Amino acid sequence: MARNIRIAPTAAARALNLLRTIQYTHPPSCPCHSNPTHHHRHRHPHHPNDPPSRALATPSTARGPQEKEYAFEMASSNIRFGRGCTREVGMDFRNLGFGREGKGGKVAVVTDGVVGGLEVVRVAVEALEREGVGWVVFDGVGIEPKDEDINRAVQWTKRHSPSAFLAIGGGSVMDTAKLMNLLLTHPTSTLHSFLPAPLGAALPITAPQKPLICIPTTSGTGSETTGTAIFDLVSRRSKTGVSSRALKPLLGICDPLNTRTMPAAVRASSGLDVLCHALESYTAIPYGERGPAPADPALRPAYQGANPISDVFSLRALRATARFLPRAVRDPADADAQDQMLLAATLAGVGFGNAGVHLCHAMSYPVSSQNPARYAHPGYRVARPLIPHGVSVAVTAPAVFRFTGPSNPERHLVAAEMFGVDVSRVKRESAGEVLGEAIARFLDGLGDQPRGLKALGFREGDVEALVEGTVPQRRVLALAPGLAGEEEAERGREQLRGLFMDAMEY
Amino acid sequence: MARNIRIAPTAAARALNLLRTIQYTHPPSCPCHSNPTHHHRHRHPHHPNDPPSRALATPSTARGPQEKEYAFEMASSNIRFGRGCTREVGMDFRNLGFGREGKGGKVAVVTDGVVGGLEVVRVAVEALEREGVGWVVFDGVGIEPKDEDINRAVQWTKRHSPSAFLAIGGGSVMDTAKLMNLLLTHPTSTLHSFLPAPLGAALPITAPQKPLICIPTTSGTGSETTGTAIFDLVSRRSKTGVSSRALKPLLGICDPLNTRTMPAAVRASSGLDVLCHALESYTAIPYGERGPAPADPALRPAYQGANPISDVFSLRALRATARFLPRAVRDPADADAQDQMLLAATLAGVGFGNAGVHLCHAMSYPVSSQNPARYAHPGYRVARPLIPHGVSVAVTAPAVFRFTGPSNPERHLVAAEMFGVDVSRVKRESAGEVLGEAIARFLDGLGDQPRGLKALGFREGDVEALVEGTVPQRRVLALAPGLAGEEEAERGREQLRGLFMDAMEY
Repeated sequence: MARNIRIAPTAAARALNLLRTIQYTHPPSCPCHSNPTHHHRHRHPHHPNDPPSRALATPSTARGPQEKEYAFEMASSNIRFGRGCTREVGMDFRNLGFGREGKGGKVAVVTDGVVGGLEVVRVAVEALEREGVGWVVFDGVGIEPKDEDINRAVQWTKRHSPSAFLAIGGGSVMDTAKLMNLLLTHPTSTLHSFLPAPLGAALPITAPQKPLICIPTTSGTGSETTGTAIFDLVSRRSKTGVSSRALKPLLGICDPLNTRTMPAAVRASSGLDVLCHALESYTAIPYGERGPAPADPALRPAYQGANPISDVFSLRALRATARFLPRAVRDPADADAQDQMLLAATLAGVGFGNAGVHLCHAMSYPVSSQNPARYAHPGYRVARPLIPHGVSVAVTAPAVFRFTGPSNPERHLVAAEMFGVDVSRVKRESAGEVLGEAIARFLDGLGDQPRGLKALGFREGDVEALVEGTVPQRRVLALAPGLAGEEEAERGREQLRGLFMDAMEY
Repeated sequence: MARNIRIAPTAAARALNLLRTIQYTHPPSCPCHSNPTHHHRHRHPHHPNDPPSRALATPSTARGPQEKEYAFEMASSNIRFGRGCTREVGMDFRNLGFGREGKGGKVAVVTDGVVGGLEVVRVAVEALEREGVGWVVFDGVGIEPKDEDINRAVQWTKRHSPSAFLAIGGGSVMDTAKLMNLLLTHPTSTLHSFLPAPLGAALPITAPQKPLICIPTTSGTGSETTGTAIFDLVSRRSKTGVSSRALKPLLGICDPLNTRTMPAAVRASSGLDVLCHALESYTAIPYGERGPAPADPALRPAYQGANPISDVFSLRALRATARFLPRAVRDPADADAQDQMLLAATLAGVGFGNAGVHLCHAMSYPVSSQNPARYAHPGYRVARPLIPHGVSVAVTAPAVFRFTGPSNPERHLVAAEMFGVDVSRVKRESAGEVLGEAIARFLDGLGDQPRGLKALGFREGDVEALVEGTVPQRRVLALAPGLAGEEEAERGREQLRGLFMDAMEY
């Protein structure tokens, strides 16, 4: 150990002593070598109904490559929330070192053709101008973008080589900006390099990302708080994406004024995304059941399973969504409900961003991508077939939570309570049924929601393709409670078939 | 506007149009110029009992220098939690670019003489060694450090010029490490430069901080999540500190195994710190009542008042503390209670780190610092008088919440409920009384807690000096509900006198 260690005189004795006592007799993969109280075989039951009583994950005595997870990690963008705070964004970039005379380089303002015409972009650009921050606009983001849309955006990015990104829009815009940043900073890589297995090479993100600030204009995705970026992988007839703490924005600027002009249909479907983020992250398998524990903390997935911190965010967002989404959809002048929905979207973002989602999202990807009957959701101002993301996640929710109920009845009952259901006399066996029903009633109440896949134009003959599009979503399927693991692939497929069939009508 | 802006061909028309529509007719200080729905005069009542129904702050129409705040910002260190995760810290530094052959420079391992002899330091140093990360130990941190302790640590830091910091210990250690980092990166400044007015020059933190990872060994301070650093300013006979998002650690590694050896007295008093972080941040004035709104978002204080995100953390931490602290203090083998208390401490850290504390903390600083009777708290292994921080914050709590009750009875009742009080028939007027009583009973139940300042050796004749030591704590006093503002200095002093007198005995 011939290393050149400088030790302060006062600390020398201690440090030498430390060095002397270091032992390499334990295998380096054992976290427990240093503390005898660490060895617990007993696994404590979960009482999710009452978060503080829930025992935290206890590592098993022997660590092998298949050892279950023993830790979780919480990360989030900084979140600023308030009516009117969009105008601060120029100062934020100035505080990051951008400014007069091209100092710091240019900021790529990433948006889409619709948002590009709204006040929010004018206010943000004015804010950049006021601080002398150089900028350049890309307004070519596709709604529910395909890989070719992303590649076009990346080409643009490489041509302009911005030093930072400002994403203004919904999830499609924010996710595209994350991928522009990723491929600008990894110039020899492609989208495929970073996609999770089996869809891509699952390479780690090694280069530091350029600063990204997000200004959401919908109340849904929560993308302003997460390192998740989703797009439609056309060749696989499904959506997929990259999810890594390394991609998370520096700051999410959540200004409810920017959500004022959302059409009611967008308000509803983006709110359903919030609903499912909250429900899925709260009912995902607990982090301590995920395995194997990563060999390196950087490899601990952001989608790590339910944990005591994500629970707090997810439940808070669920309660708010159950309460305020109907108001926000019904009354376009209900500014308070709109504010609460933007906050709920952001909180749910932190929740699922640190826990993950499962079946509703996994199954939604082929639903939105395949759309065999060329369904066009009412109220969306696009001239092409479109099953909005929020619609495609919520449409299977009644079936999904009926299926997952037995895995953790207490949590499903807590969730049902958030919709106002009196669960005091509900039996544990009925938890999934009761939650599924509460969700169906809630969807009905919003109006204009398809009552199952059939209403979106899917038929029994489409189920096999839907299953094919779902199976590669390993990252999220791994968090689905009650679903057979990869080692039982055929049983898992059978379960998914059953779920899609059950979701045909509610 | 002759600026050299490169615009993508497809976006050129839009961008030119944007530039054309930018108007400078509104004063730049008005956040509302862009959206007519932004103008609301009505201030909505708070219903803190039910967070989602709480209306969010609405800015007033005319912005002047005294305009109230209209936004809040949430920031936190990444938090990793799990038994055994200390050993991951070597990989964390390697992932930050440190490693073999002195790559990246040396990590300063900051600790104190007691913690330096514990397993945790051995495990952490072994983890650094395993990855070839160079390190140097400073174990000279003082318990409840004075400014001279900090200055000594800073001198050491400048001599060794580390490239990163690893703080292992309680609040004193983590706070000292933050200040070592601050003054290493601002070599021409002194502690005085960054102290808040009127104690210091309140200069902004301009240089980027070196990476800091914290490993807490107590369940109290929450310092691993915050940008707060507190010390004893001897000349002013009180404690003070720096609080800025810029100081927050990169990562807090919360490993419950490191809290196993805490003596019961330390467990109790650090838990009382958690209790008061949660209670004070939840009852602090709401962010929208703070003023003026900052001219620059970087100047928005971390201690910004209660807000919907901090509320979630503070209440969750309060509930857990009320439930698990008595168990953790009573039974040194109750590992689950210890795990829950470490998690509660961290969650409360995020809560108060994004909301602030108020009277208990402001009043505790002179209590701990002055200690006229040279009180030495039982169970602490130090050979000098010591009123532990947690003891000094909790001792005034019954009096404080009696005083603040009328400012927000609903919140005080919610807090009382967390202690198991049935508040269904309590009148709003009694909210402060009821919460004060619940706290007093809780403190009694822990054992070894002084029943008021008298039991710590304070007499009526000491009150004036205590008030003198409290008045400069403007940063936190500004968040105290019901306390007269600076413009009514004499009334404020009178209120503080009354509070200290009321806190003599409970």
